[in-house]
Amino acid sequence: MPKYITVIGSSIVFDPKIKDIAYRVGLELAKHNVILICGGRGGVMEHVARGMKDGNGITIGILPGVSRSEANQYIDIAIPTGISHARNMINVIAGDGVIVIGGGPGTLTEIGYALIFDKKVVVIKGSGGVADILADKTIGGKKIYSAETPTQAVEKILSRD
Amino acid sequence: MPKYITVIGSSIVFDPKIKDIAYRVGLELAKHNVILICGGRGGVMEHVARGMKDGNGITIGILPGVSRSEANQYIDIAIPTGISHARNMINVIAGDGVIVIGGGPGTLTEIGYALIFDKKVVVIKGSGGVADILADKTIGGKKIYSAETPTQAVEKILSRD
Amino acid sequence: MPKYITVIGSSIVFDPKIKDIAYRVGLELAKHNVILICGGRGGVMEHVARGMKDGNGITIGILPGVSRSEANQYIDIAIPTGISHARNMINVIAGDGVIVIGGGPGTLTEIGYALIFDKKVVVIKGSGGVADILADKTIGGKKIYSAETPTQAVEKILSRD
Amino acid sequence: MPKYITVIGSSIVFDPKIKDIAYRVGLELAKHNVILICGGRGGVMEHVARGMKDGNGITIGILPGVSRSEANQYIDIAIPTGISHARNMINVIAGDGVIVIGGGPGTLTEIGYALIFDKKVVVIKGSGGVADILADKTIGGKKIYSAETPTQAVEKILSRD
Repeated sequence: MPKYITVIGSSIVFDPKIKDIAYRVGLELAKHNVILICGGRGGVMEHVARGMKDGNGITIGILPGVSRSEANQYIDIAIPTGISHARNMINVIAGDGVIVIGGGPGTLTEIGYALIFDKKVVVIKGSGGVADILADKTIGGKKIYSAETPTQAVEKILSRD
Repeated sequence: MPKYITVIGSSIVFDPKIKDIAYRVGLELAKHNVILICGGRGGVMEHVARGMKDGNGITIGILPGVSRSEANQYIDIAIPTGISHARNMINVIAGDGVIVIGGGPGTLTEIGYALIFDKKVVVIKGSGGVADILADKTIGGKKIYSAETPTQAVEKILSRD
Repeated sequence: MPKYITVIGSSIVFDPKIKDIAYRVGLELAKHNVILICGGRGGVMEHVARGMKDGNGITIGILPGVSRSEANQYIDIAIPTGISHARNMINVIAGDGVIVIGGGPGTLTEIGYALIFDKKVVVIKGSGGVADILADKTIGGKKIYSAETPTQAVEKILSRD
Repeated sequence: MPKYITVIGSSIVFDPKIKDIAYRVGLELAKHNVILICGGRGGVMEHVARGMKDGNGITIGILPGVSRSEANQYIDIAIPTGISHARNMINVIAGDGVIVIGGGPGTLTEIGYALIFDKKVVVIKGSGGVADILADKTIGGKKIYSAETPTQAVEKILSRD
């Protein structure tokens, strides 16, 4: 049985460094035959899915609206939900663990849900936003892990401890 | 781009005739390279997914709970949602049309959502339950279509009119 | 502890007879110190809430969008949910029983949810739409009751059997 | 028209200081004829509702489960939603602003939703948990405000700027 890993972060990204981090996380996850769960839209979601496809991985996008056309071009299976940002809970429940790259308010909701549902959370340090604010914090007794690189993030999310 | 078709009906089915109808709907959808959306559990959902897999189709199960282990063995991609029966709306939004086999209260909610979101609905006559109660009815100005056989149901759901 | 009763039906109503039925259901529920749960918008929801207010009852509207301004003027407490038609499940869960007046696809979803969550359902005969289609039907082993008048509908919804 | 204010924080609270902060926030909100929105359960939700009732305010609890009996004894209107923690989005949408006292993962999701839906967020400094981690932070260009006392938190949440 393959693992499903959720990757989250901002839907709008200008910094090429962040795009590259997301791309390399996707490429690395593909090597481990992981199925990618993401929000299906732009920014981090698009670049991680692009990396997955370059590595021949499978990508799933859980969309907030009612149409598959909202999905970015690297999504294999698009699931429109029609429940707006309440779909953020599904993004997290559908994965076995969560990697965080940068991120704003939506990412904050997803980290909260990940901790509620006991999913391991690994943020990539230096990716800005919510990832850097919450790196290595403990919330409600649950630890948010951090990684220095995409490779290390994927290693940590797939390891048992 | 492949079509996504949702198939709905009871999660508990004893009648071998209904199991066979569901199986043959799956087999027929697979011939048309459709992606199957269903609730991922037992009964109609299991037998339609079994037909899809025998036809080498792709099956997606949108689950009410929080664990992929709820899915039946014929589901390729399982998406646990954690929102209980509110996931019925997603089952329908995620498809381009809906085929109905028998069915009880949950199926009723899904037919309602299909009409709200302007999805074509085709029920299989003689499959019992909600399918037979609503065959050929018009609700809120929207028609519920009917078919005599699995083959005809798949033809109708994939046709333009 | 007061009872909470949900009243459902079309959001657009032209027929003065249906408006009057909804109004009289509200007036009658108010006499029994029931709290009204409804979808908070127009049509049946507006006229039942108007009846409740004329009887000094309390009215709650569970809205599909993100703003209280969606509520009709007879709603005391408006709860915008932001989850679109998935809020139909909440309308039903929040009540102890459901009265149905006419209704289209949305009403169909709510009757389905009422049966799933074992809420008593009483439709008013002659009010058209889904109410007349499903009057006295049994779905998944669960009966949909019917009443001839608003007074009888309220009596039935509040009685034990 | 009254304002609706959401108060969030941990459902389990041992520290009498935190209980007292929550109680005094409720008492203060009641003075301003605010309607309280909260998650309806224990801890911060219970103590803020207790303060509201001592001040003769109105309290609404948006519950994760399917039964009103989940609500604490200070809730006037209980709305069970049946969508588990996805109801956290509703808690926030239903209010005009959010006061945060301590809090864990669920509170994190609610702060994220508050920022997504442009609700003002005021955390009470020194209340621990998520409130202290996010005090005065800016996420996705949106500021999280802070207050030193319950009175100041209520003042800030009700002021225009």
